Amino acid sequence: MNWDLLLTHASLATFVGQASYGQLDDAAVACQDGRIVWIGSMRDLPAASASAARVVHDVDGALVTPGLIDCHTHLVFGGDRAQEFDLRLNGATYEEIARAGGGIVSSVRATRNASEDELFDQSLPRARALLADGVTTLEIKSGYGLELEAERRMLRVARRIGQALGIHVQTSLLGLHALPPEYKERRDEYVDLVCHEWLPALAGEGLVDAVDAFCEGIGFTRTETQRVFEHARQLGLRVKLHAEQLSDLDGAALVAEFGGLSADHLEYLSSAGIQAMSRAGTVAVLLPGAFYALRETKLPPVTALRAHGVPIAIATDCNPGTSPLLSLRLAANMACTLFRMTPEEALRGITVNAARALGLADRGTLALGKRADLVVWNVKQPAELCYWIGGGLLRRLWVGGVAVPVP
Amino acid sequence: MNWDLLLTHASLATFVGQASYGQLDDAAVACQDGRIVWIGSMRDLPAASASAARVVHDVDGALVTPGLIDCHTHLVFGGDRAQEFDLRLNGATYEEIARAGGGIVSSVRATRNASEDELFDQSLPRARALLADGVTTLEIKSGYGLELEAERRMLRVARRIGQALGIHVQTSLLGLHALPPEYKERRDEYVDLVCHEWLPALAGEGLVDAVDAFCEGIGFTRTETQRVFEHARQLGLRVKLHAEQLSDLDGAALVAEFGGLSADHLEYLSSAGIQAMSRAGTVAVLLPGAFYALRETKLPPVTALRAHGVPIAIATDCNPGTSPLLSLRLAANMACTLFRMTPEEALRGITVNAARALGLADRGTLALGKRADLVVWNVKQPAELCYWIGGGLLRRLWVGGVAVPVP
Ligand SMILES: [Zn+2]
Ligand SMILES: [Zn+2]
Repeated sequence: MNWDLLLTHASLATFVGQASYGQLDDAAVACQDGRIVWIGSMRDLPAASASAARVVHDVDGALVTPGLIDCHTHLVFGGDRAQEFDLRLNGATYEEIARAGGGIVSSVRATRNASEDELFDQSLPRARALLADGVTTLEIKSGYGLELEAERRMLRVARRIGQALGIHVQTSLLGLHALPPEYKERRDEYVDLVCHEWLPALAGEGLVDAVDAFCEGIGFTRTETQRVFEHARQLGLRVKLHAEQLSDLDGAALVAEFGGLSADHLEYLSSAGIQAMSRAGTVAVLLPGAFYALRETKLPPVTALRAHGVPIAIATDCNPGTSPLLSLRLAANMACTLFRMTPEEALRGITVNAARALGLADRGTLALGKRADLVVWNVKQPAELCYWIGGGLLRRLWVGGVAVPVP
Repeated sequence: MNWDLLLTHASLATFVGQASYGQLDDAAVACQDGRIVWIGSMRDLPAASASAARVVHDVDGALVTPGLIDCHTHLVFGGDRAQEFDLRLNGATYEEIARAGGGIVSSVRATRNASEDELFDQSLPRARALLADGVTTLEIKSGYGLELEAERRMLRVARRIGQALGIHVQTSLLGLHALPPEYKERRDEYVDLVCHEWLPALAGEGLVDAVDAFCEGIGFTRTETQRVFEHARQLGLRVKLHAEQLSDLDGAALVAEFGGLSADHLEYLSSAGIQAMSRAGTVAVLLPGAFYALRETKLPPVTALRAHGVPIAIATDCNPGTSPLLSLRLAANMACTLFRMTPEEALRGITVNAARALGLADRGTLALGKRADLVVWNVKQPAELCYWIGGGLLRRLWVGGVAVPVP
């Protein structure tokens, strides 16, 4: 059997091991049937296999990384909130914006009013922008439909985006994102609906890879979150949580109790929350785009997370209200600039730790047997991926060993 | 004579007049010989001219703006400073970075050691990144050579970049950027050299469109700046200045005294400085990329600049040390997010006011007789250009009526 693909003379950032980006200089990586089947130094490359490889690229010292992984997005939505952004910067108050039809309800309205094809057409360019920046695995949440049919449409569109772009999409049901206006006086009824009807229905259709909630004063209580987590567990679904973004509701400890994949945001995370996450192996997903766009000043406890060995991932949180961020590399730059993470931590946060946040053991590093999700960059050093702010640094990429055209 | 190009069914942001982006909906714009020769509502479009146009694009409601103008960059340089970025985030002190060969001297060394072709090859992708984001006019400064031959090389590379990409490059001689190490004990001698030798030589070669300096405690004094400005004036060259970035040396008033094009940075600008700029018509160029990357907290006095009618431009300041920013649209987003400018102010800052900061009266708006530098975007509303963070929103562009392939 011949190798399908061989990249030679690469500077590999493997993220295997704990130090120096797991870097292998003047190295090669070979793939077959969508997996990495050989990786090592050029001088150890078996000549016979190399010369029989179907496709060989000499990348001439360029940096090669695993495909990037954006483990927290809301990129399927109708409309946008640019007008609200404009109004706010022109001094409009929250009430004035609400009267002008702004806020999350405007995204809910636009999402409900969009057909599946419209939603797909509007959302696809956002996923394509992430792909153009090296993202080959992407999480997408529901949560702007807030009625069964619209939530289903969002999740179907998420799946279609993966198929259309040839990348992998993980879905999360985020029924508990905001209370729909029509349930204003009937919170329990709404939570019941999500638990008893939507969850089993949508999971049964194969549309739900994990279950998420927004546990916050302006979102849902810890008790409501716990209810939906219990129903998720009954269905064998992993959970994750928007926790401790604006206040401390002890959500991280809750998600840890459920053996959750990740707790996300975490600016107000307590010591007890950190310890619970550390024990449970729950990943801390930090979202510097929202921190930046909201001009927050309360930093997530990076030093304490480090000290307790909690794996840290970084994601775009791409959403129309608080983080219209279309670049995961830029999220990594913000993690360095705003959160003082090191470039290595930031890059592990969009590769190996992001894979863990999605429960995907087959990717996020360059190692034997891993999926052949490979990105060749127009730079030589891993730190440059965080250092440059904006710009297109991608040269080419493969997803599961298949070349994907750079958008 | 037939029109060379006609864009129909466009949402034009003309930036003519003072309000609402100068927006013209369902409009058309026509060009001939590189200039705009017709602009107006679709219903007024003369049918005979329209049907005789050589190239017609129905843009189907897309936003069309003037080509963007980045009026302050240092994008020609050798090497990068990603390793220094990495060291600093790993806790290295300034001394440790200097010992490891970091800081501006490392850029000077790499620039001096690069041949003209090497410098061109390293710098071109940065200009291409700006072009990919809609920039059709670009200022590039010297200042990492700090010896005649290397400064000349930088300016020649700047010109070559314009030719290679088919965009317009304005050059600024920034001899007073940093004191070269070999002149450490001979400041006056260095300033003499710049004034008496470099300025006349390089201006004589047509390489200098304007003269700039870094007036700062860690740069050059007000008196030294004044000397170089006087020599610039004798040669009929306009001046501009890095002023009041880290402290108030009253540089803005100095550049205003010389009828300067712009004073740039301005975090520490005083009331007196604002008034001097207002009287002289000197543009305030704000550089939020450096503010962001340096995590500054002292904001430039946007409200007072507004109140005194000082035109505000926004630029990337693209440079290897304090602003490795490769997107002018992202600079505009930062101007909104960090400086609380409105999207309209930010967009005027990268079009009409940036043109003024470069002394270019023929561009920056969509109006009869202006250069046909046109960008068609994948959005419909001007505010979206500031609202989205990252991502590629450009659909196509023309520079002086000539289609330039989107990189
Ligand atoms: Zn979120
Ligand atoms: Zn500068």
